[in-house]
Amino acid sequence: MGVNWVQTVKLAPPSLENNTADTDRLKAELKDRLHSDHIDIDISLQRTLPETLRRYDYGVHCVVFKDKNRWVLAGVSGVDSNDPMLGIAVDLGTTSVVTRLVDLVSGHVLGEGAFDNPQVIVGPDILTRIHYADRNGGLDYLNELVIDGLNRSINELCRKNECQTNHIYLCAVAGNTAMTHLFLKLPPRWIIREPYIPVVNYPGVICARDLGLEINPCGISYVFPNVGSYFGGDLIAGILFSGLAEKEDTAILVDVGTNAEVVLGNRNWLMACAGAAGPALEGGVTKMGMKAGPGVIDRVSISDEEGRFIIHSIGDQPPMGICGSGLIDLASELFLHGLIDIRGKFQRSSRFPDIEFVEKDGMLHLVVVPGRESATGDDLTIGQADIDSLVRSKAAMYTILETITSSVGIGMRELSDIFVAGTFGVFINPTSAVTIGMMPDLPIENYKPLGNSSLGGATTILQSMESMDQVSDIRDKITYMELNVNQDFMNRFSAAKFFPHTDRSLFPSVLTK
Amino acid sequence: MGVNWVQTVKLAPPSLENNTADTDRLKAELKDRLHSDHIDIDISLQRTLPETLRRYDYGVHCVVFKDKNRWVLAGVSGVDSNDPMLGIAVDLGTTSVVTRLVDLVSGHVLGEGAFDNPQVIVGPDILTRIHYADRNGGLDYLNELVIDGLNRSINELCRKNECQTNHIYLCAVAGNTAMTHLFLKLPPRWIIREPYIPVVNYPGVICARDLGLEINPCGISYVFPNVGSYFGGDLIAGILFSGLAEKEDTAILVDVGTNAEVVLGNRNWLMACAGAAGPALEGGVTKMGMKAGPGVIDRVSISDEEGRFIIHSIGDQPPMGICGSGLIDLASELFLHGLIDIRGKFQRSSRFPDIEFVEKDGMLHLVVVPGRESATGDDLTIGQADIDSLVRSKAAMYTILETITSSVGIGMRELSDIFVAGTFGVFINPTSAVTIGMMPDLPIENYKPLGNSSLGGATTILQSMESMDQVSDIRDKITYMELNVNQDFMNRFSAAKFFPHTDRSLFPSVLTK
Repeated sequence: MGVNWVQTVKLAPPSLENNTADTDRLKAELKDRLHSDHIDIDISLQRTLPETLRRYDYGVHCVVFKDKNRWVLAGVSGVDSNDPMLGIAVDLGTTSVVTRLVDLVSGHVLGEGAFDNPQVIVGPDILTRIHYADRNGGLDYLNELVIDGLNRSINELCRKNECQTNHIYLCAVAGNTAMTHLFLKLPPRWIIREPYIPVVNYPGVICARDLGLEINPCGISYVFPNVGSYFGGDLIAGILFSGLAEKEDTAILVDVGTNAEVVLGNRNWLMACAGAAGPALEGGVTKMGMKAGPGVIDRVSISDEEGRFIIHSIGDQPPMGICGSGLIDLASELFLHGLIDIRGKFQRSSRFPDIEFVEKDGMLHLVVVPGRESATGDDLTIGQADIDSLVRSKAAMYTILETITSSVGIGMRELSDIFVAGTFGVFINPTSAVTIGMMPDLPIENYKPLGNSSLGGATTILQSMESMDQVSDIRDKITYMELNVNQDFMNRFSAAKFFPHTDRSLFPSVLTK
Repeated sequence: MGVNWVQTVKLAPPSLENNTADTDRLKAELKDRLHSDHIDIDISLQRTLPETLRRYDYGVHCVVFKDKNRWVLAGVSGVDSNDPMLGIAVDLGTTSVVTRLVDLVSGHVLGEGAFDNPQVIVGPDILTRIHYADRNGGLDYLNELVIDGLNRSINELCRKNECQTNHIYLCAVAGNTAMTHLFLKLPPRWIIREPYIPVVNYPGVICARDLGLEINPCGISYVFPNVGSYFGGDLIAGILFSGLAEKEDTAILVDVGTNAEVVLGNRNWLMACAGAAGPALEGGVTKMGMKAGPGVIDRVSISDEEGRFIIHSIGDQPPMGICGSGLIDLASELFLHGLIDIRGKFQRSSRFPDIEFVEKDGMLHLVVVPGRESATGDDLTIGQADIDSLVRSKAAMYTILETITSSVGIGMRELSDIFVAGTFGVFINPTSAVTIGMMPDLPIENYKPLGNSSLGGATTILQSMESMDQVSDIRDKITYMELNVNQDFMNRFSAAKFFPHTDRSLFPSVLTK
C-alpha cells in the first residue's frame, strides 16, 4: 500500500534562539521529511496552527497531499487527539455517483455510499447536459446539483460512521472529462466541438471550500487528470487501479461504460482508444440488455438433460428482463447448442423441443422465460433483432481490441491479462464472452474483473503517496489513438460478425466445445 | 525598473493534432517563458479562460506573480482589450494606511490614497489591539476594520482614476508583523509573549478573495515577509526600496517609526536591530514633538542679525506646536548659539536679549513663539524637560547606531550612505541631526531621505520581477541582533548624552561651526 498521506511530526518548541514562526517551522520539518522545496499551507489553516501546536506540545499529525512537485498541507491534528483523519473517494459517473470513506492512516475503507447523479433531471446523457450548461445559469445549476448530491452523500457517510465532515481532509474525484468539468464548474462547451478541447487536462489540487465541498474547510480536492475530451480521469483512475502501467508484460484494460474505452500497454508504454466507433456501429458495445437490478437475468445456461434454459435472476426474483451479461451467456449457449448459427440467426432444433420460438411483429422471437414464470405474466422473449444487435456489439468490441493490438504489432493471444472494468466486468462470464467471439480466446484465469475501477483508483490515491506519481506517469505515457473507421476497420468488423469469428483458428477453445 | 509582471503571450490555437486543454496550453507557454516548472492557475480563472482565449484569438496579457519558486497567474486579458492591468501597493501602518495604484504594464504610479488605520478605535497602539484580538470575535473585528478600510480606499482610488477594482490583479502589502497578522486574520497572541513567535514569517502569495479584498476575484495579495515579531515586512520593504542590499559599500538604513529600526549592511550581509531599547530609554527616539500637520513648526533657525528665531510652520499657518524635525533644528540652533550647553541645559545669553525664558511650573521654558504670533494666543514654549527628553532620544539613536556598527567592526564615518526612512526622514534637517549628535558626522550628501520606504518597497515589488528575488534574498540574509542594554550600551549612551558627544573628535564638522 505504500506510505500514506499522514505524516506525524514532533517539532522543536520555539525559543528565543530558535524563533522561527509556527507556519515556517512546520514547513521546514515537512520540507525535510518530504524532500521538497515547496509546501503550501492555506491561510485558514495557519489561523488555527499556533493553538494546535501549543495544545499538543508541537506534536501533530499532518495530512499532506501532492500535486506534481507541489505539496499541500490539508490538515493538522494533535498526536494526542482521537480525531480520525479521513478522505473521500468519488467515482463521478454520468449516471450514478459512488462515494467511499477512507481512513487516511490505516488506508481502510470505512463505508460506501451511492446515489443517482442528480443531473439526470437535466438530461440522462452528458451531451444534453453540455448543451444545457451553455444556457444562462445552466452550468451553475448542473454544478450545484452534483455538489449538493455529494455533500448529502458525505454527510450520510459521516453519520453512518459516527464521524464529522470536519475530519475529512482529502477528496479524490475520478470522472469522465465532461463530468469533472461540471464538478469544477468549468464550461464544458468546447469538449464536444471540434477540435474537442477541455478547459483543463490537469485540474490537480483545489481547495475544497472553493468547490463548495462540505469537508474540512482547509481540506483539498484532487481531480484525476484527463488525456482529452474523450479520455477522462475515470479511465486514468482505472489504469492506476488495474496496475497495468506497472507490469512488465503487455496487458489490456477494457472499460465498457457509456463509451467503450480500451487501454493497451505495460510499464513502458500505454496506448488508448475510446469513444463510439462511428455510425457503422450504432449502439456500439453499450446497448446490450437492460441495467442490472432485482429480477434481471444475469446468467443463463441450457441444460442438455432437461432440454431447457437454466436461468439466474438477480435477487432470485421472478425474471423481468435480461442484462448484458445474461444476453452474452444466452447467445453463447444458443450457439453452442446449435440454436443460432454462426451468423447469429435463430435455428429451431429437434434436440430442444421445449425451447420455443414465437412470431411477434413479423419477427422470430425466442421464449427465454414463459409467461407463467415471469414477473409480468407475459413471455420474456428475445427477438432476432436483439441477437443481431448483440452481434454488432460483440463484433465492435472485438474489432476495437484487434485494431489497437495490431496497431502495435501484438497478437491478442499474447496479452498477459485482460482487465475488465465496470459492473459489466463483474457480471460477465468470460467463457461466454470468448465463445461468442467478443473477447479474445485467452485462458479464463487471465480475465480479471476490476469492478468499479474508477472508484478503486480514487481510493488508491487516498491510500498511498506513490500512486500520485503513478498517475502523472500514466497520464503522460498514454498515446491516444483515434479510432479510425476506415476500410480496414470495416473488414475486421465484418469478419468479427460471426460466432465466434470468420477465422475460427482465432478461437481454438470454442472449437473443442 | 526591470521586467514587469505582465507577460504578453500568443498561443498556437488548438487543433485535432494539438489538442492540449486551454489551461495546460497557457501553462506550457508560461512555463517556457518563465523557466519554471510550477505555474498555478486558480480554478475561478480557469472558468473564464476558454472564453477569453477564443475571443482574443489566443493572444492575451497575463499578470503573473512569483512566490519563491512558485508562479501564480493572477489575471488574463485580451491583447486587443483596452482594460488596464493594475496593482495596489499598501503601507499598512499602525497609525495610518497608505495605498497606491500602480499600472502593472508601465510601472507608473497612477494615484495615492491614505486613511487613518480604523483599528485606532480599538486602541492607538498595537499592544492594545493584540490583547483585544484575544477576546471572542476580537480578531475578526480588527481584521474587518482594516479590510473594510482598504476596500474603501481601493474603491476611492479606482473612482478617482476612472478604473474598475476588477482591473486590479495584485496587491502588495508591507506592514509590521502584528499589523500583517491582523490583515491576514492570524492570531497575534504569541507575538508579544516570550519567545515572541509570529504565526508566519513568509506569508507569501494569497488569493485576494480569501482575504476579502475587493479587487479582481482571481487577484492575489502578496505580504512582505518578516524576520520576527519585532522586525516586520515594512522594514524589509524599506530595505528593498533603499537598494541597501544591492550595494558594494556598507550603508545604514534608519527607520524611526513606532520603534527605532536600523539595518546595516551591503550586498553581502545585513545586520538589523529594532525595538525600544529598554526602560532606560523610556520614550526612546519616538516621542519627539507632535505629529506633523498644518501650523506645526517643522523648521527653526536663529537669525544672528535680528537676534530672534526664524520659524517655518507647515502650510505657513500660525504656529501651534513643534514636531520632531522642528525640535531637532531648535536644539541645534540653541546649541550653536550658546543658548544650551553641552548637557542641553538652557543658558541665558546677552547676545540674544530678545530670546525669552519664562518660569512655568517651577521649570525653565524657552519662548519659541510669543503669544501674539501663535495660533492659540498663548506663548509657545519648550521646557527644559522637553530638551532633556530630546537629549535621551538623540543619545539613544546614536547609541543604537554605534552599537550596531561597532558590533561588525565598522566605524560610523565609514558608512557610504545613511538612508533615513519615514516621514521623519523627509522633514529632518541632517545638518541639525549631526549638530546635536543624533546622527554620525557624515557629509550631508550621504544622507538620503527615503520618505515612505515601506510604501516604496511595496510599489517596487509591483514594478519589477527582480525585486521579488531581492526580497527573499534580503529576508534570508538578515542577521537580527537583539539590542542588549548592558553596561557597555549604557556607557555609550551616557557618552552620547552631550551635544554633540563627549568625544567631540567624532563630530569634526560641528567643531568648525
